[in-house]
Amino acid sequence: MALYVQKYGGTSVGTIERIEAVADKVKSFHDAGHQMVVAVSAMSGETNRLIGLAKGISETPDPREMDVLVSTGEQVTIALLSMALKKRGINARSYTGWQVGIKTDSSYMKARIEDIDTSSMRAQLDAGGVVIVAGFQGIDDDNNITTLGRGGSDTTGVALAAALKADECQIYTDVDGVYTTDPRVVPAARRMEKVTFEEMLEMASLGSKVLQIRSVEFAGKYKVPLRVLSSFKEGNGTLITMEENSSVENPVISGIAFNRDEAKLTVKGVPDIPGVASRILVPVSEANIEVDMIVQNVSEDGTTDFTFTVNRSEYQKALGLLKTIGEEINAREVTGTDDICKVSMVGVGMRSHAGVASKMFKVLADENINIQAITTSEIKISVVIAEKYLELAVRALHTAFGLDAEATEE
Amino acid sequence: MALYVQKYGGTSVGTIERIEAVADKVKSFHDAGHQMVVAVSAMSGETNRLIGLAKGISETPDPREMDVLVSTGEQVTIALLSMALKKRGINARSYTGWQVGIKTDSSYMKARIEDIDTSSMRAQLDAGGVVIVAGFQGIDDDNNITTLGRGGSDTTGVALAAALKADECQIYTDVDGVYTTDPRVVPAARRMEKVTFEEMLEMASLGSKVLQIRSVEFAGKYKVPLRVLSSFKEGNGTLITMEENSSVENPVISGIAFNRDEAKLTVKGVPDIPGVASRILVPVSEANIEVDMIVQNVSEDGTTDFTFTVNRSEYQKALGLLKTIGEEINAREVTGTDDICKVSMVGVGMRSHAGVASKMFKVLADENINIQAITTSEIKISVVIAEKYLELAVRALHTAFGLDAEATEE
Repeated sequence: MALYVQKYGGTSVGTIERIEAVADKVKSFHDAGHQMVVAVSAMSGETNRLIGLAKGISETPDPREMDVLVSTGEQVTIALLSMALKKRGINARSYTGWQVGIKTDSSYMKARIEDIDTSSMRAQLDAGGVVIVAGFQGIDDDNNITTLGRGGSDTTGVALAAALKADECQIYTDVDGVYTTDPRVVPAARRMEKVTFEEMLEMASLGSKVLQIRSVEFAGKYKVPLRVLSSFKEGNGTLITMEENSSVENPVISGIAFNRDEAKLTVKGVPDIPGVASRILVPVSEANIEVDMIVQNVSEDGTTDFTFTVNRSEYQKALGLLKTIGEEINAREVTGTDDICKVSMVGVGMRSHAGVASKMFKVLADENINIQAITTSEIKISVVIAEKYLELAVRALHTAFGLDAEATEE
Repeated sequence: MALYVQKYGGTSVGTIERIEAVADKVKSFHDAGHQMVVAVSAMSGETNRLIGLAKGISETPDPREMDVLVSTGEQVTIALLSMALKKRGINARSYTGWQVGIKTDSSYMKARIEDIDTSSMRAQLDAGGVVIVAGFQGIDDDNNITTLGRGGSDTTGVALAAALKADECQIYTDVDGVYTTDPRVVPAARRMEKVTFEEMLEMASLGSKVLQIRSVEFAGKYKVPLRVLSSFKEGNGTLITMEENSSVENPVISGIAFNRDEAKLTVKGVPDIPGVASRILVPVSEANIEVDMIVQNVSEDGTTDFTFTVNRSEYQKALGLLKTIGEEINAREVTGTDDICKVSMVGVGMRSHAGVASKMFKVLADENINIQAITTSEIKISVVIAEKYLELAVRALHTAFGLDAEATEE
């Protein structure tokens, strides 16, 4: 008998029929003798409907009242799911954030969980009951309703699992696991049985939008085994686990992430003097433009080239800003392009294997793909290439590094 | 400077535009220096939408979860109204039932308010703020969410006014007051400036659906001056007040209520022995058929006739049941009709004026309207007549008793 925390996202509870299907699934776990705690999101579309009402009143609605408003979405789902379980003869009970005692700080719309009182959940579980918790919400010390920000229901699930020391936190979503890369780009992409928290963090931040990144950090911090599964398809999903638990047969590369949503800017011929990087980047960040990769080439003639990438939607704004900055710091030239993409190979196995980068560059060179910028971390290598080569690059790398389904691992 | 509790119903907050209009109204009271507590219903249609979701799962959804579900409707409104007031520069703050401390018993879907903690509201008012409270909801001693049953937002308004010792409880709705009778039937019907609690109770139970009856009882019990006004039209509405405060110029009759939704059943030739009334009525009530008027004629030949009225929708069910009962108690005949209606004259002035009944009967006789049954209470006389005479009877009585607009009171 295990204690499972399951989390179902908005698509999984998007209609009455789907809520009934979730009830069937929860019942089958309960009937098998497991203790069940279930966190749910708002029915898909509901949060947007509520935000639409608020925007009808103000473009910048009061944040405290925004949380009062949107937290109703999950409250609707917990009531409906509990009804569906009761209909099946199961002693289910719904809990809002304040009822279950999810204490957060007071940062409306992006609150962080500080503490969870498990006593009421324990009592319900000990009585043979099922606990249904509203995801995404909590209360602060002054009994104000708070929300964790979009996607925060994943974090609720993980936090409940950590507080209850659950055997596993299962995140049900509309994909059946984490893949070695996007199957729409590489048909041979393979579902991973396991992936480490570190790898998952690198993947998530690079656009594999399976799990909310904060929930993965949280699970890693509290050592909660995390599993991603499909609500709609049977299967084991992907287990996200501590590196220590991974077997030595780990492949060098676990997956390949990519992001089309980037633009690249370069300031050329910048005087190579201390403080010049901050003179470029501080105004950019003050303009609320988020910077992703940052690459500074080796200086040769007393000047250096400074390259960074931003979200493509901010390209024009960033370019205009940089031209002004370029003049101020006597840069030779400011250039940019928004037809690039970023491809990243991720794997904890990389740490102990030399030559991953050189092999990656050779694979791309063999396809005549020019690399415009490179950054590396301990478990990740990212390159910027022209967007038109994205599919070709990802497929070639996927095959070369033995990730294709049915392929032998290198 | 006064302390007002205002309550706005579902139609008054049915759209964003209407919520903005409510915010304007609340602001004008606040700007005039009054302390404002505002209770609101769910946006019109929202409660039915939520009930529809529940019915999609079960015809008899779990009552605890039903309250978790439907209480979200008012929570949405308090957030939106608070946003609209904040936008107008007013320090407004929303409170759900549990946040404001509305304690109820544990009767889900029809809970009764037991206690209200006014400390948080007082603090907000003392800080110059406006208090926005979700109507219709509370919590029980175990922190379960409860609702007061349909229309319960009126009760919330009155209970808040009683707890805060407010100067007046103002119920904003889609009519501009309580009328002497339905203006659709009698164009000359007049808005009453004042009506007593007792009269209002008799009117409400007879189908003048302006105020939820429980809220009127509550206001009477706690001596809360209650005013009904329109959200959409300027005016003083109708003040519902203690009889003691009414002037001696009170008319004999305050208003005429009527109800088409009735059917009449008669058991003829019932042996006039003790216990026979209960032998007829107990099975009817056990079948969950609600009985309205009950009339037993004087016995003459050792048998009596027993007449009562039920809701028209239950007529066939009641008739079938009565035929069985009739045989068991050896009644001569069971008859019934569903083309009747009930007309009631209400007024506290009746107590000290003889002859109201005889005048009423004469007015009806002059119009050749046959009276099929009569019941009276201290401040009310009701008659059953054929439904086709309803308009004629109400208009004739309205004129004869001096209720027409511009008419001199008799």
